[in-house]
Amino acid sequence: MKSWQDIRDQKLKERDEKLKPFSPKTELPSIDELNDVSDYIDKSDVLSNDEKVITNYSIIELIERYRNGTLNVEEVTRAYCCRLAVANELVNCITEVRFNEALEEAKEEDRFFKRTGKLVGPLHGVIVTLKDNIRVSGLATSMGFIGLSESIEAEDSPMAKLIKDLGGIILGKSNTSAGMMYSESTNMLWGRTLNPYSRKYLNVGGSSGGEGAIAALKGSCFGIGSDIGGSVRHPAALNNVYSIKPSFGRLPCFGTASGQPGQESVRTVYGILSKKLDNVKYVLQQIVDAKPYKGYDATCLPIDFRPYILPQRKLRIAFLDTDGLSTATPPVLRGLQIVKDKLKFNGHIVIDWPDLYLKDIREAIYPFYDANGFQAIFDIIKKSGEPVDKLLSRWFPTARDMNVSELWKLQIKRTELAQKYMELCNGYFSEGKIDAIITYSSPLPACLINGVVPLPCTAIWNGLDYAASTFPVTRCDPKVDIPIQKKAYISECDEKVHTTYKESLHRFAGGPVALQVVCGRLEEEKCLELTNYISSLI
Amino acid sequence: MKSWQDIRDQKLKERDEKLKPFSPKTELPSIDELNDVSDYIDKSDVLSNDEKVITNYSIIELIERYRNGTLNVEEVTRAYCCRLAVANELVNCITEVRFNEALEEAKEEDRFFKRTGKLVGPLHGVIVTLKDNIRVSGLATSMGFIGLSESIEAEDSPMAKLIKDLGGIILGKSNTSAGMMYSESTNMLWGRTLNPYSRKYLNVGGSSGGEGAIAALKGSCFGIGSDIGGSVRHPAALNNVYSIKPSFGRLPCFGTASGQPGQESVRTVYGILSKKLDNVKYVLQQIVDAKPYKGYDATCLPIDFRPYILPQRKLRIAFLDTDGLSTATPPVLRGLQIVKDKLKFNGHIVIDWPDLYLKDIREAIYPFYDANGFQAIFDIIKKSGEPVDKLLSRWFPTARDMNVSELWKLQIKRTELAQKYMELCNGYFSEGKIDAIITYSSPLPACLINGVVPLPCTAIWNGLDYAASTFPVTRCDPKVDIPIQKKAYISECDEKVHTTYKESLHRFAGGPVALQVVCGRLEEEKCLELTNYISSLI
Repeated sequence: MKSWQDIRDQKLKERDEKLKPFSPKTELPSIDELNDVSDYIDKSDVLSNDEKVITNYSIIELIERYRNGTLNVEEVTRAYCCRLAVANELVNCITEVRFNEALEEAKEEDRFFKRTGKLVGPLHGVIVTLKDNIRVSGLATSMGFIGLSESIEAEDSPMAKLIKDLGGIILGKSNTSAGMMYSESTNMLWGRTLNPYSRKYLNVGGSSGGEGAIAALKGSCFGIGSDIGGSVRHPAALNNVYSIKPSFGRLPCFGTASGQPGQESVRTVYGILSKKLDNVKYVLQQIVDAKPYKGYDATCLPIDFRPYILPQRKLRIAFLDTDGLSTATPPVLRGLQIVKDKLKFNGHIVIDWPDLYLKDIREAIYPFYDANGFQAIFDIIKKSGEPVDKLLSRWFPTARDMNVSELWKLQIKRTELAQKYMELCNGYFSEGKIDAIITYSSPLPACLINGVVPLPCTAIWNGLDYAASTFPVTRCDPKVDIPIQKKAYISECDEKVHTTYKESLHRFAGGPVALQVVCGRLEEEKCLELTNYISSLI
Repeated sequence: MKSWQDIRDQKLKERDEKLKPFSPKTELPSIDELNDVSDYIDKSDVLSNDEKVITNYSIIELIERYRNGTLNVEEVTRAYCCRLAVANELVNCITEVRFNEALEEAKEEDRFFKRTGKLVGPLHGVIVTLKDNIRVSGLATSMGFIGLSESIEAEDSPMAKLIKDLGGIILGKSNTSAGMMYSESTNMLWGRTLNPYSRKYLNVGGSSGGEGAIAALKGSCFGIGSDIGGSVRHPAALNNVYSIKPSFGRLPCFGTASGQPGQESVRTVYGILSKKLDNVKYVLQQIVDAKPYKGYDATCLPIDFRPYILPQRKLRIAFLDTDGLSTATPPVLRGLQIVKDKLKFNGHIVIDWPDLYLKDIREAIYPFYDANGFQAIFDIIKKSGEPVDKLLSRWFPTARDMNVSELWKLQIKRTELAQKYMELCNGYFSEGKIDAIITYSSPLPACLINGVVPLPCTAIWNGLDYAASTFPVTRCDPKVDIPIQKKAYISECDEKVHTTYKESLHRFAGGPVALQVVCGRLEEEKCLELTNYISSLI
């Protein structure tokens, strides 16, 4: 029998062999030589000029060029394969590779276009990467577990199938935390994905950290991640890219692999990440327009795309600078202030939002995440005898397979809090219902490696099932963002956040500051239009 | 301290005192004198002619008369109070009474109309009854438990509030099984509600049995019940009335009282019951048009009313005469055949639908109903020391507070089966997706008292969260509906069903045969339009 080390080594070798034909011929800078590689690919000669131009088009620009025949899918796919191979060499973001399959599919689409003069669909030749937990036929779905890495999927998940049906070209899958159970993308199988903004010090975020890094380095046109407590928004924010975490039922996520399969008290949803907001908007609309509820995923809702038009009146935007567990550090406060000032300058109403109910929501929903006492994860790791990352195993000693009577009581509490929060949003502000809440994703400008703090400010919106986006605002500048001398901390976690920031100030230099736009449940269109408008101001 | 008997007697006394001013002055026929009272009120002189005319108007007819001033709300409310008091004396359907409050609200609406010339809303002066588990301020929410019968609600539930906001006049609440946990409406507090079609032999159904009987006797314009396994459709069918059980998220049911609060693996939904299909259609549209997701109930979906127009092509209707646990008895088979023949005669396509997956769905979802080992119910009955009906206590010995890891496995199974069933509906029939499934609600034409059999044929559609209606077709005629000599039974339950039918044939005489129209998830508008069309054929 093979040891887990053998299986892991074999798996890594296979991946590297598949990447090799597309890998850069020259040596890339080491971490010590170049810590921040966020713009390395575009500024260096590691790619040809054409490859750089191609991989910088927005989806709409690509589609235009496909339609008028000035680009073909094969050359675009090839350019992205090269770019993604470089990205992987820089930050170790890729798990499963399907470059050859993608190139075959690209050629097929080119033949189709030649034959018919038509595009396959609205994602014709659009290059996609998927988080590792999204099942794709021919690839494993390991979620970072060695014990799962040898099982190859026979079928596409509805999301993968839908993307292919619309013409999307899937290049491969990306790294995550083991079982998507913590916010750093490192595990015993694939190792750690590094943050392109600071490979040495900063955490890439998680659990969709591979997609976050790929989006930052433009290794695909868009990525799909999953989010149950912040797993799309956290890495999106830590990589300064745009993202949307929809409410449950807009995007098909049936059959997703999970460390806690069957958990429904807070729903796993798929989200979209991209360096370009236009891409996020385009992809959301195309997937929703494909009516996934009709045949792809029985859990999807029959809610067609509803274009949102900005109101003629002043916007009413609420700002939240604490999640009730910690408070924002100086660069994040500065980010919030930048947005606030721009909105005010443009005549909109900004108000400070209270942290009412946030602690209660956190306490109601956190127990859901491990309510089965990690039984499903224990079953997985038994297979290979593999060890697990400490970021996961630290929770094992206190884990408990809860009774259903307890779970139901928590579900009642969560539902009651959702009702109260709706009433708060409708009634708190005397001038009318607020349009959105702007808050942070992480109280720190990215997080240190092995330094993630609990993330209620993303998880709360999962508990409420609200739509939320991320958008980049600024980057940490230690000269400007002087640590605050706080008189009192709101919690131990808050103290840890601010002490960490102060003690490791230089490590946070250049750390991305991206914020969230939070709208109501199933208000994805509104959320993205507001994000678009607000981003355009800054 | 008062004994549970004292509390119960006091509660019944209070109810009867509130009913008394509206009760009939003459003695009503005893059960032995008149077993079937389904048309007694309209055929006797127990009400005045005006009262009979008023209580036979459809909602639209009522509203027209309010608008042109030929009727006022007070006289309509008074007529319904009298009719409902008679109904209660005939079949014991009412729990909480608010006739006086209703009359005050009626007068207020009349004053509003006089002052403004406008109606309060689309339910202006529409007379409503609610199942006992729907909280209404000023009334108790006992669900048949003595221990809850002294707590008076301080606030309206969102559904009650919405109905009042739209102008609806709530007369009171109706009987159910204890904790809504079985399909007969009898409990230790309120006793048994009788079936108007056969007070002596037939069960009124449940758990919304009080509403079923009220609808049959036209004691309100419409009733709201709740359905988690058939609790709207079963009593609707056993009382030969129309009903709709929507998918979760259309009607606001936040805060509903439940014997198993916090259970979300199969969702409780509210449904609408009425003797008139037009009323069901009207009320569904008015409630959905009020956009309950905006302020009434955070669990409601932003899906506005989508009028459904019958397709120009032939309809494709599937017929299902077994739920995999039992098979239809002769009167029910005859009912199915009547509908099938009429559809065929009108040029539509009818096909026999396989019972694929039904057993699996049943096995996946049944454990949800008592997954907390009845802990919530034990907490309630501890309060007063009251005994519970055997129909409930028979499950206590095997009840078990399940582990969450088990629950999650069942949730995975249910989700997978919903996916498979979607694929079946989309792909089974070579000529295209079926438009609806027609099946029974109960394999027997109503059920005997203390003779309810398991009801997968309603519960399965809860498991799948499909929209389903009921519509009356015929009544059992022992001369025509000769018991079948079956060679083999598909289960013990099936044998029990057919043996019961054969052995108690005369008791089923006149028993209602109502069928279900089952459409996809969140297809309520389609479901009611198809029900309307199909009903018009028979």
